Amino acid sequence: MNTPVPAPLPTPASPDERLARAALSRTVEPGDEHAGRWLRRYGATGFLDRLLHPTRGDGTDTGPFPGTGHKRVASWRLRATAADPARDLTTVHELGGRFLVPGDTEWPRQLDDLEDARPLGLWVRGPADLRTWALRSVALVGARACTPYGAHTAADLARHGWVVVSGAAYGIDGAAHRGALAAGGATVAVLACGVDTPYPRGHDQLIRRITEQGLVVGELPPESHPTPSRFILRNRVIAALTRGTVVVEAQHRSGSLATARAAARLGRHTMGVPGPVTSALSAGVHELLRGDATLVTDADEVVELIGDMGQLAPARRGPVLPRDLLAPATAHVLEAIPARGPTPATVIAQRAGTTPDDTLAKLYELHSLGFAERHGDGWRLTNATTPASNARRGGT
Amino acid sequence: MNTPVPAPLPTPASPDERLARAALSRTVEPGDEHAGRWLRRYGATGFLDRLLHPTRGDGTDTGPFPGTGHKRVASWRLRATAADPARDLTTVHELGGRFLVPGDTEWPRQLDDLEDARPLGLWVRGPADLRTWALRSVALVGARACTPYGAHTAADLARHGWVVVSGAAYGIDGAAHRGALAAGGATVAVLACGVDTPYPRGHDQLIRRITEQGLVVGELPPESHPTPSRFILRNRVIAALTRGTVVVEAQHRSGSLATARAAARLGRHTMGVPGPVTSALSAGVHELLRGDATLVTDADEVVELIGDMGQLAPARRGPVLPRDLLAPATAHVLEAIPARGPTPATVIAQRAGTTPDDTLAKLYELHSLGFAERHGDGWRLTNATTPASNARRGGT
Repeated sequence: MNTPVPAPLPTPASPDERLARAALSRTVEPGDEHAGRWLRRYGATGFLDRLLHPTRGDGTDTGPFPGTGHKRVASWRLRATAADPARDLTTVHELGGRFLVPGDTEWPRQLDDLEDARPLGLWVRGPADLRTWALRSVALVGARACTPYGAHTAADLARHGWVVVSGAAYGIDGAAHRGALAAGGATVAVLACGVDTPYPRGHDQLIRRITEQGLVVGELPPESHPTPSRFILRNRVIAALTRGTVVVEAQHRSGSLATARAAARLGRHTMGVPGPVTSALSAGVHELLRGDATLVTDADEVVELIGDMGQLAPARRGPVLPRDLLAPATAHVLEAIPARGPTPATVIAQRAGTTPDDTLAKLYELHSLGFAERHGDGWRLTNATTPASNARRGGT
Repeated sequence: MNTPVPAPLPTPASPDERLARAALSRTVEPGDEHAGRWLRRYGATGFLDRLLHPTRGDGTDTGPFPGTGHKRVASWRLRATAADPARDLTTVHELGGRFLVPGDTEWPRQLDDLEDARPLGLWVRGPADLRTWALRSVALVGARACTPYGAHTAADLARHGWVVVSGAAYGIDGAAHRGALAAGGATVAVLACGVDTPYPRGHDQLIRRITEQGLVVGELPPESHPTPSRFILRNRVIAALTRGTVVVEAQHRSGSLATARAAARLGRHTMGVPGPVTSALSAGVHELLRGDATLVTDADEVVELIGDMGQLAPARRGPVLPRDLLAPATAHVLEAIPARGPTPATVIAQRAGTTPDDTLAKLYELHSLGFAERHGDGWRLTNATTPASNARRGGT
């Protein structure tokens, strides 16, 4: 049997860098490519330092930031001075969350495709591992004021084993998250606000449930509110995080189309679900489908396309991630699942020596990754996880 | 002003060849490529002669047709012997129809793309000129058991100035023909039976109206009945005759998809109108759209695509055929339309020295070709027909 070669370990961020990135996440707006360039030149601590300690006698307000407008630099300086990153980190830690930065094992490296618009960091709540989830995720996005047809279709597409990423908005987003949750599947909400400040308020409960069972993610520090431009820039994170974006219903000039176009620019698959030509809520999708997007009518067709990338097999064919790329705590729960017969999560928790809640979250993660499956009230390994089938997989 | 160069005149068929082709149209089934090869080798009269007068002492039943099965040749011989082409021609002439063969001015030369499966001839009823109509025609096809959504969409697409070609079946075909007629537009029904034997019977009235205002066309001689294989082979004629095929609603494995695929093989545009993914009647169209077909949601998008071919401008931009390629009788009516103000058809008929019925048919043809338009109860030249706009067109 081949031993999979683990990916090279990323260089971990220093505590100073993490703190600086947390401060910068309050200082610059998401996707600001000016800031991205200075970050690349000076590093996070160097960039922050130059904001907090302007050199006298520069002759200009922008000082070490030539080419970036005075107003922008002035605004960064104001915000950097007011930032209290240690407090922000504490706030999120107290909610059970974390602040991921490039270099962390859990950092989804596909975000690097955003280059200078890459998020400074990601505020995350929820029990799962963002990096492994993102590897088999699909974005499902669409209109807020969707039709029952759109909601039905989104929920249906969300029930198929991949990790559903969406924006927690009303309409298609909500239907997608709910569909994934209802199927015991995995889902990630990418917010345009702080992860402690659910928006929209009407989705309080939904977002809380995603926090418990999935992942809630955002670029903005605690207590941040969404703005129109933050919604638009949030979409690039959804596009970059996922293997492909499916637009379910969208009017002309809708934000979902922007997500799909961002996905296309990043080399991700873009897909659209058609509808009646008489529906304005399908007009934007049809526009997309007249371009390079692929028409999909069901989950199999999404799998067919995403599977094309060669790194992500259809869910039903079992895991594609080598076991040793699982986060240690997840791998630990995987080892605690007995080889034969479905086993209740509580028993698995005892064997793993952790809480039932934590075990359940890890089991959902393993489920979404194809390592484990539910059977009645219990959980068991999938065929693909047994040594025999691993040998078969090696032979094909 | 540039004088358009007329296309080279085709070699006219001899009376013997026309008679032989009429006999052969009763002898071989539509699209029989064996027959097409012998026709190419021996010519129509030579092929028929070898069927009617088998050489003794050949040693085989198939005689001069090596490689073609005995049964097929035996069936051809039986049918050729029973054929009475002079009577068939008389029957159709008495109905006001005609039998077109390659070499006729009215023969649509794009049918040559069918090579050995090209129709032996076309039995035609109706006042218009098939060749000029086919040059700006689009096929609208789809399910017999269509939904109200499909029928609405087909009728809507049919109301836009191009010549609508379809198969006169129930469902989408009927909606397409009716839509074209209701808009005073031009339409061609391609039948899988004799043009004197309308099928389906429930479309008696519709087919009669098309005979009066448009064109009813078929490969089969009078009194022929449709069969499943005749329906399928009829579809290749619809595909070959038109600039593109639009499928409005179709289940998986529907005959309309076969028409679209035939169109694609012939280098024509294939288009599909999407619908809800929950509708089995859109499933076939979606299958097509996941291939190379183009999604269209309205007539403008069809025009955009068909216009790509460079020879057929959108209807609203006026005629693209040089006036001197019009059939003489049609050109005569065009000359009878006064330069200013809408004029009743009866007045135009007087000026042209022909009957109001004939004038009206020619006016509809001129309308579909973009030379004339209806205005209230009268008819007038389009802007594109006036000398000033011809000069503008020359300058772009």
